[in-house]
Amino acid sequence: MTTSQPAKHPTSLEALRDALRQFAAERDWDQFHTPKNLATALSVEVAELLEHFQWLTPEQSQRMTTAQLAAIRLELADVLLYLIRLSDRLGVDLLVAAVDKMAINAKKYPVDLAKGTAKKYTEL
Amino acid sequence: MTTSQPAKHPTSLEALRDALRQFAAERDWDQFHTPKNLATALSVEVAELLEHFQWLTPEQSQRMTTAQLAAIRLELADVLLYLIRLSDRLGVDLLVAAVDKMAINAKKYPVDLAKGTAKKYTEL
Amino acid sequence: MTTSQPAKHPTSLEALRDALRQFAAERDWDQFHTPKNLATALSVEVAELLEHFQWLTPEQSQRMTTAQLAAIRLELADVLLYLIRLSDRLGVDLLVAAVDKMAINAKKYPVDLAKGTAKKYTEL
Amino acid sequence: MTTSQPAKHPTSLEALRDALRQFAAERDWDQFHTPKNLATALSVEVAELLEHFQWLTPEQSQRMTTAQLAAIRLELADVLLYLIRLSDRLGVDLLVAAVDKMAINAKKYPVDLAKGTAKKYTEL
Repeated sequence: MTTSQPAKHPTSLEALRDALRQFAAERDWDQFHTPKNLATALSVEVAELLEHFQWLTPEQSQRMTTAQLAAIRLELADVLLYLIRLSDRLGVDLLVAAVDKMAINAKKYPVDLAKGTAKKYTEL
Repeated sequence: MTTSQPAKHPTSLEALRDALRQFAAERDWDQFHTPKNLATALSVEVAELLEHFQWLTPEQSQRMTTAQLAAIRLELADVLLYLIRLSDRLGVDLLVAAVDKMAINAKKYPVDLAKGTAKKYTEL
Repeated sequence: MTTSQPAKHPTSLEALRDALRQFAAERDWDQFHTPKNLATALSVEVAELLEHFQWLTPEQSQRMTTAQLAAIRLELADVLLYLIRLSDRLGVDLLVAAVDKMAINAKKYPVDLAKGTAKKYTEL
Repeated sequence: MTTSQPAKHPTSLEALRDALRQFAAERDWDQFHTPKNLATALSVEVAELLEHFQWLTPEQSQRMTTAQLAAIRLELADVLLYLIRLSDRLGVDLLVAAVDKMAINAKKYPVDLAKGTAKKYTEL
């Protein structure tokens, strides 16, 4: 018996990565999963997420209904799944990359300059 | 002592979520971080990632140069960071949502129907 | 008699702009049509267009079926409609802006440097 | 002398389409301009436009500074240029498609149902 579902309570992105590998392999989808195609699919998923917010006021986006949130939750999941899959195909360790990027962001946006402003770092 | 950087080797998304909370709090950025704005920013980050692939052939996207990959790696990180932040603001546990979505995907795309085709589940 | 449809064969973007104004006014939609929301909606429409291409090879994208093309044609239309509407709300004349941008692009990408390469102008 | 710039005051999308054809031909760019790649590039351009709005309140997005508007104007132009180019490569007449889509939208969103609501037509 093969299954492409991860354990009920994954504690790491690695478990999801492995489940996605198996999911694609079982369906012979590696041929479609070029980094270019996966980056495109990721972009499409993010837009499906964004669609839920497009006409909302800032306030409305902070108090979603249960039904809205249930739909959004699954869109967030899709984004994560494609992001993990794309990173895997590129050989990138997402968590390590994220830690590195946070260190870069901390330098780009020093607290004393960035406090209370949404300006881009190039304009601080 | 305050620091918004996570430990060198995070083993969970929770560590990044907490670091991002502190990063925003230190800069008084919670005012900008509505779910709507974060979903928009996520979309912008994904496009910065996609830009690296836009003119590549499928083959070229599978053998990136070291320089390309270094840049792409940080874009992937940005996408993850905004995704974590947005999920946090919405109260969504990303990993649990991803596991739930994989189960849904497995039903949408049964192996016998989806094998070797890139068709959408509505057309299988 | 009111109608929000433009004449059968519009010869200008202005006709569409006026039809869109009337369409929104009749539905009391100006309240939702802030530039920010329209830019977001434009982004969502472009992703719906992009979705049709996400798993295609370059060759497949050059010989779409009639059914694919019929769907894509309407997505292209949606992108144009939101683009016109957004430009209108910002007071931008799209055609004049496009002419100005082409002149800028011609300087960014001189024929002798840009010929046969997909590099960004910053790397030429 | 060859030039890929349209006349100073174009009165039609056709003039821009022809100028874009010449621009690409002069640079030997047709090889990169597959529909798939152009749809991707269009998506990237829209995100560059959206970036200007990401942290703004609805009110701020309605009173942009002159500098912001000058930058946004050129992003709108880029979106139009890629949209025209993509439509051209697919053999789609954008204006006719837009007229057709407006007729469809009028049926999807009848005034009496759609008035004052931002709901999707499937939920009206």
